[in-house]
Amino acid sequence: MSAGPFSLNQWTTRYWPLPDLVAGCAGAGVTGVGLWREPVAEFGLARTAKLVREAGLAVTSLCRGGFFLERGALDDNRRAIEEAAELGAPVLVLVSGGLPDGPGARDVDGARQRVGDAIAELAPYAGQHGVRLAIEPLHPMFCSDRCVISTLGQALDLAERSPAEQVGVVVDTYHLWWDPHAYVDIARAGERIAIFQVADWVTPLPEGVLTGRGMLGDGCVELRRFRTAVEAAGYTGPVEVEIFNTGLWAMPGAEALGLVLERYAEHVA
Amino acid sequence: MSAGPFSLNQWTTRYWPLPDLVAGCAGAGVTGVGLWREPVAEFGLARTAKLVREAGLAVTSLCRGGFFLERGALDDNRRAIEEAAELGAPVLVLVSGGLPDGPGARDVDGARQRVGDAIAELAPYAGQHGVRLAIEPLHPMFCSDRCVISTLGQALDLAERSPAEQVGVVVDTYHLWWDPHAYVDIARAGERIAIFQVADWVTPLPEGVLTGRGMLGDGCVELRRFRTAVEAAGYTGPVEVEIFNTGLWAMPGAEALGLVLERYAEHVA
Repeated sequence: MSAGPFSLNQWTTRYWPLPDLVAGCAGAGVTGVGLWREPVAEFGLARTAKLVREAGLAVTSLCRGGFFLERGALDDNRRAIEEAAELGAPVLVLVSGGLPDGPGARDVDGARQRVGDAIAELAPYAGQHGVRLAIEPLHPMFCSDRCVISTLGQALDLAERSPAEQVGVVVDTYHLWWDPHAYVDIARAGERIAIFQVADWVTPLPEGVLTGRGMLGDGCVELRRFRTAVEAAGYTGPVEVEIFNTGLWAMPGAEALGLVLERYAEHVA
Repeated sequence: MSAGPFSLNQWTTRYWPLPDLVAGCAGAGVTGVGLWREPVAEFGLARTAKLVREAGLAVTSLCRGGFFLERGALDDNRRAIEEAAELGAPVLVLVSGGLPDGPGARDVDGARQRVGDAIAELAPYAGQHGVRLAIEPLHPMFCSDRCVISTLGQALDLAERSPAEQVGVVVDTYHLWWDPHAYVDIARAGERIAIFQVADWVTPLPEGVLTGRGMLGDGCVELRRFRTAVEAAGYTGPVEVEIFNTGLWAMPGAEALGLVLERYAEHVA
């Protein structure tokens, strides 16, 4: 069994306008893209759906729903599910959000509980729309301000409250590589793996730690070991490359994509 | 049961000269200090031992041994044990070090194995000197470059290869607060808890992420819950305040200590 085709997550080439990105992917033989809600909304939802469909591109995921402890979160997540459905994206990535403001600001257990409850409530709506929610554990350095779900084990505990076709998990090498239970939990995840994303880990981390992900092969992550592990768990979906990196963002889109494809062949495929 | 007295880790007031720090602690009624090897060596080992002894201060820990994958590490750690013994410090804190350079640079499992082997080899030497090794799990954001031991569970797995009086663990709130298994592992640790350290978690993290620890009460860590948990596990030793923070380091030592003591009373004691 082998993982499916390469997919370019849109945030890897963050400033590449959608029509150029779509044309660039088609020209490079790339068959899948992971899209983000903000640039899709800016270009227009229906217009984006038409653009990718006519180019023959699969939308491998939509990023992202989540941030469940903010006001109006459930409504916003229902809209995200509808957007994923209109784009033909089978997966909506969920980043849970961090600790709440005000009372409860230190109650990490309570926040995790509330996130789990929100996802369980949302799951049937996703199922009705043919969209699978994918809970993404983020690296523990994001626990307070972005995502209280820090390990794959936690994500699985929450996902298992709903049917597997409604809720799965994201396996992202950048967030999980350090976890001593990562490979055991990938095996446990099995059919719950909704999407597999890759980036490398490099130091020093930049201020705010958000935009310092490493180009494939530049860091310490055993990328091929991860790919082999998700395949052994039964995953046959796309391998999405998602790299937040200011240096990469400064490159012309086509050049960045070329570099990503080269490194992907060398370190992941 | 209640945790023992407050102790000031020297790195919290990093630029306070040792004689001033010792006099300042004595004057403020502080009875314990955690020392670091570099400033101790600079002031002189025997001279430091005499200074703290004559001031009636207990040395609650010496920071730090470890960095086991560097050349000459075992010899250096034996010297660190001897230094701790001469200072009367019952505990030598071990920060394991990150991934090695060159071949094996991505082999995180192998690095963890080698760290465990080195600690097991070192343990009897520590026992002979009346010093207890304390394995410190560091936050996973330090996994590649400082410490491949990322969770209390991992630290315990390694500690349990040796007798409890030779090898224990560090419980540091800054590194462990996010871990969904933190409290279960504190209960498991029991008598293995060699030293308890506190700092708060604040964001955004600074570049390099080393010097952005939060003053007690400024962040999201449930400090009192941690103190209660280590006490429930049987810990009666000191509570060492260890905060790496550039803002704090810019304050005069006595003023910084005053602030720490005030916040400690409010948020930890």
